[in-house]
Amino acid sequence: MDVFEAIRSRRSTRAYQDVPVDDDALNHVIEAGRFAPSGGNNQTTHFLVIRSRQLLDELADLVRTEFSKMDVAEGMYRSLANAIRAAKSGRYVFHHHAPVLIVTANRIGYGNGMADCACALENMMLMANGLGLGSCWINQLHWLSESEAVCAFLRRLGMAENEQAFGALSLGHAQTSDGLPAREPLPRTGNPVTFIG
Amino acid sequence: MDVFEAIRSRRSTRAYQDVPVDDDALNHVIEAGRFAPSGGNNQTTHFLVIRSRQLLDELADLVRTEFSKMDVAEGMYRSLANAIRAAKSGRYVFHHHAPVLIVTANRIGYGNGMADCACALENMMLMANGLGLGSCWINQLHWLSESEAVCAFLRRLGMAENEQAFGALSLGHAQTSDGLPAREPLPRTGNPVTFIG
Repeated sequence: MDVFEAIRSRRSTRAYQDVPVDDDALNHVIEAGRFAPSGGNNQTTHFLVIRSRQLLDELADLVRTEFSKMDVAEGMYRSLANAIRAAKSGRYVFHHHAPVLIVTANRIGYGNGMADCACALENMMLMANGLGLGSCWINQLHWLSESEAVCAFLRRLGMAENEQAFGALSLGHAQTSDGLPAREPLPRTGNPVTFIG
Repeated sequence: MDVFEAIRSRRSTRAYQDVPVDDDALNHVIEAGRFAPSGGNNQTTHFLVIRSRQLLDELADLVRTEFSKMDVAEGMYRSLANAIRAAKSGRYVFHHHAPVLIVTANRIGYGNGMADCACALENMMLMANGLGLGSCWINQLHWLSESEAVCAFLRRLGMAENEQAFGALSLGHAQTSDGLPAREPLPRTGNPVTFIG
C-alpha cells in the first residue's frame, strides 16, 4: 500500500475476529516498529509480543482489577475515566480481545521513552493497515505503569527491571463484514496548521 | 512509495540544499501529520510551519544563545550535552539550515501531548521520504520548552498560551549528489523483541 494511503486510511480497530495473525504479517509489523527512529539512535524500545490467549485473558483481568480500585476524579483525562467506569462495571477488556498485543517498553527515566515508543507504534499501525490488519493504540498499560501488579506481570513476560511500558498495540483481523479494518478516513477538523513566512 | 519501503528506508537528513520545498509536497507532508492518531481523537496537535529564512535564522540564534547558557552535567542525555557544547563553540544551527521547520505543539498538561506529536512527526517523516524529501526529528525546542525566550518567540509565530512545543521536523531537499535522502536502511541491532506464547 502507498505510504500516503496507509497514513490517510489508518483507523483504530476495537473489535477483532478470533483468528490468529500469521507469522509473516506479524514479523512485518514488528520490523516496521523496529525501524522507527529513536533519540540518538538509542534503539532501546523493547517489543513484548503476547499471543497466548491465556496470558492475554489474565492480563485483561488484572487491568480490570487495577482500574476498578481507582476512582474517577474531576478533570481526569476522559479516556482514563471511561476505563475506570467500565472496569467497575465488570465488563472491560482493554485489549479488545485482539489475538496479539505488542507492548512497547523502554528504559525508566529515559527522556525519549514515550517519543521512541510512539514512533514505533505509529509505524506498526501503518504497517498493519497496509497488510489489511486492524490495530489500535492501547494506552492502559502506560496509565498503569506504576501499578506493582501490572509491572510484576510484565516482568514475568520479559520486561526488564529497568524498563516500563510506554504503550501497546492490539493487532488482528478486524471484525467487519470483509475482515478488513475500516478505512474511510475520519475528517480532521482539529490539528490546526499555522503557516509562517 | 510502498509503506514498508517508506518505513524501512527512512533516515535522518542533517544537511539540506538551499532550495524551497514546493507547496504540493509540503501540504502532503502536513496532511500526513494531521492524519496521525491522537488520544481520544483529540486532534489538538498544532503545526507551526516556518519557512521564512529570517525567522529560521533568528530562531537558530536564539536556540544557540539559550543552550550556551546551560552547563553540561554528569549523566545528562548525550544529545543534549552535545547541543550545549556545540552552542558554546558558537557554531550551532539546530535545524540544520533546512528551508522548512514544522513545530508540533500541543496543550500544556495534556498527558498524550508527546505521544500525539510523535505520531504526527513519524507520519511526516515517512511522507517526506516517500516524496524524496529529507527530514529529521528536531528535539531542541522540546528541551527548551521551559525557556521563556523560546516560548515567547514561538508565541509570536502563533503558538497559543496554553500550548508548548513537543517536537519539530526539519524538512527539505537533502544535500546529496542526487538530492535524495540517504535510504540505505541502518541496521537495527537494538530494539529487541520478546515473543511470548
